[in-house]
Amino acid sequence: MIDLHLIGIGTGNPQHLTLAAIAAMNAADLILLPRKGDAKSDLIDLRRTICADVVTGETRIVEFDLPHRDPDSPYLDAVDHWHDSIADAWSDQIAAHLPDGGKLALLVWGDPSLYDSSLRIADRLRERGMAIRVHVEPGITSLQVLTAAHAIPLNTLAAPALITTGRRLRAGGWPEGVDTLAVMLDGGCAFETLADEGIAIWWGAYLGMPNQSLIAGPLEQAGAEIVRTRASLRAEHGWIMDIYLLRRERRI
Amino acid sequence: MIDLHLIGIGTGNPQHLTLAAIAAMNAADLILLPRKGDAKSDLIDLRRTICADVVTGETRIVEFDLPHRDPDSPYLDAVDHWHDSIADAWSDQIAAHLPDGGKLALLVWGDPSLYDSSLRIADRLRERGMAIRVHVEPGITSLQVLTAAHAIPLNTLAAPALITTGRRLRAGGWPEGVDTLAVMLDGGCAFETLADEGIAIWWGAYLGMPNQSLIAGPLEQAGAEIVRTRASLRAEHGWIMDIYLLRRERRI
Repeated sequence: MIDLHLIGIGTGNPQHLTLAAIAAMNAADLILLPRKGDAKSDLIDLRRTICADVVTGETRIVEFDLPHRDPDSPYLDAVDHWHDSIADAWSDQIAAHLPDGGKLALLVWGDPSLYDSSLRIADRLRERGMAIRVHVEPGITSLQVLTAAHAIPLNTLAAPALITTGRRLRAGGWPEGVDTLAVMLDGGCAFETLADEGIAIWWGAYLGMPNQSLIAGPLEQAGAEIVRTRASLRAEHGWIMDIYLLRRERRI
Repeated sequence: MIDLHLIGIGTGNPQHLTLAAIAAMNAADLILLPRKGDAKSDLIDLRRTICADVVTGETRIVEFDLPHRDPDSPYLDAVDHWHDSIADAWSDQIAAHLPDGGKLALLVWGDPSLYDSSLRIADRLRERGMAIRVHVEPGITSLQVLTAAHAIPLNTLAAPALITTGRRLRAGGWPEGVDTLAVMLDGGCAFETLADEGIAIWWGAYLGMPNQSLIAGPLEQAGAEIVRTRASLRAEHGWIMDIYLLRRERRI
């Protein structure tokens, strides 16, 4: 039996680890760290730093190469195939390092519930017949670090908030019935497709990390500044991860 | 100058505290603990326990009585007036205990960004002319504890999720354009107002606490079980806090 612990580790600030996350890391027999082999090597460095900081016991730490997503396939097909390949990679590591079962921990950026596929990949292992129990430790998400850094609430008083993607915002415009949007997974600047009157934006990149960058204001001014800053930061670091909150009618 | 630190402390499991939250509590000159003077006295007990567990320094801990919300006024009017009264109470405590300024910490259930009014109350102090800087430490929300306990993602692959209230669900039905709803602040069982075909529910009460209770399944079966369990737990404990996730078409 494999006890798989999906541990939310926040977004790069080791101080955002919970006590439960640290305990789960130390209780594991094995922690697998995925190497993406791309420009985001900062991210595996951060995972290594977190392990070095908090793992004090006998837990083995093993790095493995994460398969690449095919950038030329349609998005959902490519993701589906990519998740199959990651399930293969997890299986290989489990066979090699936990052949008699045990506690396996994976460190998940943010929280395993939010735009992360570890739970879906674990489902694949179960469907293939592996004896696996899944446990989740929640972690601080980039969205929480964004609202904390700007000292703003996610929702206005008793009102809803929609968490969505850049792709959806670009394709469908501002959704019905909601005045607050948290936009994640935006490879570009989907807010540029909105008519920008009466919209406020709070943006953040590299949230929780030493190079965290924040911009906020009415979209008609801040939007252009974000586009410029984002391009310049991406050129400087070789990669960027950013999210933003949009609010209509400036009800803050 | 008052440096006000709003510190998310999770939902009752002291292991969900982040290292940053613990550091901010210990760096504060004063922690104010609100006494609600109602059946939810378990909640101030939990805050006391958390302070006893993690505050090791010179931080003073002071309890104060939180004003009551008028249950007979219309909801938003009552909340507005209530927030004014809480701002008065904070001002009184600051005048009494930090007359020369300093670092004030308030322990916020969950995360200060999500259905919490501390940021809005801090705005009131600023509008009244108090010299105040607001700092936020994110904390694990009940929604994250819910998805972790059920080991489910919040969103399906690349899809949006709406965080909303029981009041909105009851008044407006299932919102357009989204298949996942996280429902919070539901004083009853607003899911009963939905046509329940093809909807799955994951419910949790007292999330993160020793008496945590979980039910999941298709709404047509699990709904009735939740209504019964909720009534029985509420009678047993004198209060209940619960939330749930709804997903249409069982795309899990």
